[in-house]
Amino acid sequence: MAGVGIIGFGTVGTGTVKVLLENSELIKKRTGLDLKLIKIADLDIKRNRGVRVPQGILTDDVSQVLENPSIDIVVELIGGLRPAKDFILRAIRNKKHVVTANKALLAEDGEDIFREAAENGVMIGFEASVAGGIPIIKVVKEGLVGNKFLSIYGIINGTSNYILTKMTDERISFQDALKEAQRLGYAEADPGLDVEGIDAAHKLTILASLAFGIPLSYKKIYREGITNITPLDIEFASELGYRIKLLAIAKLLNKELELRVHPTMVPEEYLISRVDGVFNAIYVEGDAVGPTLYYGRGAGDMPTGSAVVSDIVDIAKKIKSPEPNSIGTGYSDMAIKDMGEIMSMYYFRFTAIDRPGVLSKISGILGEHNISIASVIQKGRRIGGAVPLVILTHTAKEKDVKTALSEIDRLPVVADKSFLLRVEGKEEDIIK
Amino acid sequence: MAGVGIIGFGTVGTGTVKVLLENSELIKKRTGLDLKLIKIADLDIKRNRGVRVPQGILTDDVSQVLENPSIDIVVELIGGLRPAKDFILRAIRNKKHVVTANKALLAEDGEDIFREAAENGVMIGFEASVAGGIPIIKVVKEGLVGNKFLSIYGIINGTSNYILTKMTDERISFQDALKEAQRLGYAEADPGLDVEGIDAAHKLTILASLAFGIPLSYKKIYREGITNITPLDIEFASELGYRIKLLAIAKLLNKELELRVHPTMVPEEYLISRVDGVFNAIYVEGDAVGPTLYYGRGAGDMPTGSAVVSDIVDIAKKIKSPEPNSIGTGYSDMAIKDMGEIMSMYYFRFTAIDRPGVLSKISGILGEHNISIASVIQKGRRIGGAVPLVILTHTAKEKDVKTALSEIDRLPVVADKSFLLRVEGKEEDIIK
Repeated sequence: MAGVGIIGFGTVGTGTVKVLLENSELIKKRTGLDLKLIKIADLDIKRNRGVRVPQGILTDDVSQVLENPSIDIVVELIGGLRPAKDFILRAIRNKKHVVTANKALLAEDGEDIFREAAENGVMIGFEASVAGGIPIIKVVKEGLVGNKFLSIYGIINGTSNYILTKMTDERISFQDALKEAQRLGYAEADPGLDVEGIDAAHKLTILASLAFGIPLSYKKIYREGITNITPLDIEFASELGYRIKLLAIAKLLNKELELRVHPTMVPEEYLISRVDGVFNAIYVEGDAVGPTLYYGRGAGDMPTGSAVVSDIVDIAKKIKSPEPNSIGTGYSDMAIKDMGEIMSMYYFRFTAIDRPGVLSKISGILGEHNISIASVIQKGRRIGGAVPLVILTHTAKEKDVKTALSEIDRLPVVADKSFLLRVEGKEEDIIK
Repeated sequence: MAGVGIIGFGTVGTGTVKVLLENSELIKKRTGLDLKLIKIADLDIKRNRGVRVPQGILTDDVSQVLENPSIDIVVELIGGLRPAKDFILRAIRNKKHVVTANKALLAEDGEDIFREAAENGVMIGFEASVAGGIPIIKVVKEGLVGNKFLSIYGIINGTSNYILTKMTDERISFQDALKEAQRLGYAEADPGLDVEGIDAAHKLTILASLAFGIPLSYKKIYREGITNITPLDIEFASELGYRIKLLAIAKLLNKELELRVHPTMVPEEYLISRVDGVFNAIYVEGDAVGPTLYYGRGAGDMPTGSAVVSDIVDIAKKIKSPEPNSIGTGYSDMAIKDMGEIMSMYYFRFTAIDRPGVLSKISGILGEHNISIASVIQKGRRIGGAVPLVILTHTAKEKDVKTALSEIDRLPVVADKSFLLRVEGKEEDIIK
């Protein structure tokens, strides 16, 4: 028997309790394990969550979980940095294994947790911290353990994917799509974590540490959100055969790792470009397995509960001989590439005055910086007024692109700051 | 340290050895495990496989693997029913854990293996037996362990998916696409296992036993191959917004399980309809996690080697306290639904004489059998000659469909045996 205590009876807590209570018999048949829910701690023990928990389980005293000798596994589901970290550390020092969905904490402040866990010989389960119900942690850590990873990228923030999908399907503005997401409960009142790519960067930190053996490197991730994307960009992307997705990217090239989160143009033929709404998908390429993709719900009470329960089961199986945590240890000294050094294809949208010679000026500057043009679209005519001019490039260096764009932005014929998106896909596919 | 012995140095054996040798340092860093390749047995120990193995490892004497006290894990990669089964049973009786990619053996004759494994306290790894490099066994067994599974279906035979993709892209016949697949080495000289759905049924047997807790039920799977599909059907499907895929399906409805392998019309909006060429993808729906999808290479030396190595690592981790095998034990008494009782939407292609009143006769018979029509396509006109008449139905019962079709086939105005495909998707989507 393994005793389970939960801290945090919110959305994910409720989902976890539902899965545990509803499917415990099934889990026992499958694994022989008897999981027993001992305590659930939450400040609010009155609210009806739509799940009936056995008498005496609810408590507003977190010590009844953290100090409980019957509890082997503490599940932290309150989120945020504090007091979550203190609770987790207390659990670890009490020799309790920990399961958490707290990506922000692990990404920004996970070293202490993994170090103390190692010192105390306890396991940390964090399947629920990345991509909700998709068992991507297990896939990367165990299913593909024989692979050197070459590339991992994905849609790992459902809120921003919902907004981008809505913008794409209905050609509405970011603000309008955000409002709709908020109305449906997919986005928070303060949506920054999601739409600025912070949440995606948290998850990428965890995935990259696990897959590439680097320390948790949240601060080294280049990050751009989706707030500047306009319906015009979505339309141009579509015309060029692409969809715009917020991708979290970890790519190994010449022993250097690229870590970046930004809106990206993805070819329409890629499966991942078809991942819509709140769904998540992660593309993982290994040297042996080749390309693989994992798709599912990235959030929600039950999908995340499914991930939490799989961690509980895994830990319960290994309780007699705990396995070391293989994350954050930094066995690899892989360098993280400076953003300026990455190579990518690019989409530029310039706001140019419609006047003879503008294209030649702009393309001249691009050429001087070794940026070669794959295609050009100019829409509408407003002699003497500003029109969008779109350029798709061949592979170029980010640093060169930034320099060229700042020169272009200083041209008198350019009316507004230019906008760029990085483009995924094969160079040879760019001209169709 | 865990000692590994391999039987069978063919395609998958070579891939496994490559992964083991190339990435053993990485695996050690990740897991702390020291995997040591002790022996490889094959009848042919002369042929150059493009991989350099350490001196003294190759042998043509299988006993050097099966009886070797340094070997903890025996990897069976010769395929086929005999002598693979004898080797596996000998390994088990010698208290060696077993990893196998042999879906035919597990599906058709796995009970003895799992029973003897239980009696001898050894583990059987079979990740490589289903969907090559996609870690679908681990996902179903561990990653989604908290879920009651509602539905699992997928493209799990790369050869037939390659042929269907080729037929779709180039509108060529099955025979021509098969020839191309054979030329490229994707199909065997005798392609029956693949194109008749036998291989897919083997894999479905394993997945269904694992996911639903039923005994290995290969003989109970309804099975149809892709040999009768014509370019005409591909064209009609496309016109109706569908792709034809060979799906292996396990669906739980009202405590009864449907188990079937057949070509299926899948809506173009479904991700799985976009899975092309030799790739595999499996859709898994759990009560907690909701819909998920797993995509990757379903065959090949390195992808399958990746799966074999993940099994070796898993077993090596648990060697001190082996875990019981959770397949084939049949803890569930779930009934397997008779094929006649399944409900589906259908695509019919009739070869009808182009004469007034034919549609009325055919639709009359369908109506009498409670089969309601969603749409009708008739192409071309050949007064008095045979033309294809295509009908898409709403949900109907298979038994009724079979009865109706046999009545229709007896009509004097019907020139050839009618052809049917089952249609996946939501009833409400069928009229677009």
